[in-house]
Amino acid sequence: MESILLAAVALFTERGYDATSMEDLVRALGITKSAIYHHVSSKEELLRLATGRALDGLFSVAAAVDLMPGRAIDRLERLVRGSVAVLVAQLPFVILLLRVHGNTAAERDALERRREFDRFTAELVKQAVADGDLRPDIDPVVTARLLFGLVNSVSEWYRPGRGLGSGVTGGDGDLGDAICKLAFDGLRAP
Amino acid sequence: MESILLAAVALFTERGYDATSMEDLVRALGITKSAIYHHVSSKEELLRLATGRALDGLFSVAAAVDLMPGRAIDRLERLVRGSVAVLVAQLPFVILLLRVHGNTAAERDALERRREFDRFTAELVKQAVADGDLRPDIDPVVTARLLFGLVNSVSEWYRPGRGLGSGVTGGDGDLGDAICKLAFDGLRAP
Repeated sequence: MESILLAAVALFTERGYDATSMEDLVRALGITKSAIYHHVSSKEELLRLATGRALDGLFSVAAAVDLMPGRAIDRLERLVRGSVAVLVAQLPFVILLLRVHGNTAAERDALERRREFDRFTAELVKQAVADGDLRPDIDPVVTARLLFGLVNSVSEWYRPGRGLGSGVTGGDGDLGDAICKLAFDGLRAP
Repeated sequence: MESILLAAVALFTERGYDATSMEDLVRALGITKSAIYHHVSSKEELLRLATGRALDGLFSVAAAVDLMPGRAIDRLERLVRGSVAVLVAQLPFVILLLRVHGNTAAERDALERRREFDRFTAELVKQAVADGDLRPDIDPVVTARLLFGLVNSVSEWYRPGRGLGSGVTGGDGDLGDAICKLAFDGLRAP
């Protein structure tokens, strides 16, 4: 089942979900169509399972953050670190999620959950601004978008096991660190 | 010619460059094939023209920055602001550029120019770190990637004329401001 899901994610990401057929998947896997339908009922179910991997990870981070005591800015930082960890752990699924457009019900549902996560982020940002902990001279909605634009942009270049940069041997923790330093404290030398 | 280019960019972005044929373009424009070939010699030429709009903009910013006197951190900030302005002014072309993969010569050339721009950015970052103006605890290559990941992520949500966020009526200048505040000084309230 896992190999079917991974092959589907690779095809959906490369060619687009619309342009991929179950026949393409049969060819890529070299198994029979009935072997696939033994595990999943449709292409749409594969998209739900794949985007679910990324979204369930993000929502479990949000749920943990929601239970955290303390200031909104600390919870926001935790949300960012947790999201980077999900991105690193579920990279192919997150990349697919970020490319979903929304023509079918499964795509629209994934987009709606993404928006729900964005609203959760924007609320934390608003609260942290109200607490006086985040700068008030950037709109909270813009801040939330830039912050997660920054996190998601990592999917464009980060590949597990390759380290963080040319000659840099940092792990995922360092990536969360680098993003939080840039986003919360800025690049300017203290 | 402009309408042919814009239609080509829309199709390349939506379906992918590989999956788009000159016949698709003929159909989208409702003109004859020979009318298109009167203006351009090939699909590849259209890709070169389209990615060139984005790349020429970015390289003219880099050239201006290169001539600027003063500290590397100030030139870097100018590069970021200028790149945001190019993104806003040439949005469909930048979106296409960011999706180019690299199977044909025109795509590979565009990718090579993108890498050249990235090297220019990374050099400025290194110089600003050496000047003691940027924090030394993030690798310069990672910093350059995160910085332009942040800038490019704007293409995911910014649409001209809609303002910056929900209820925010800022212009492009505000967008460059918001990005530079976040990236250089951080979101934490001063």
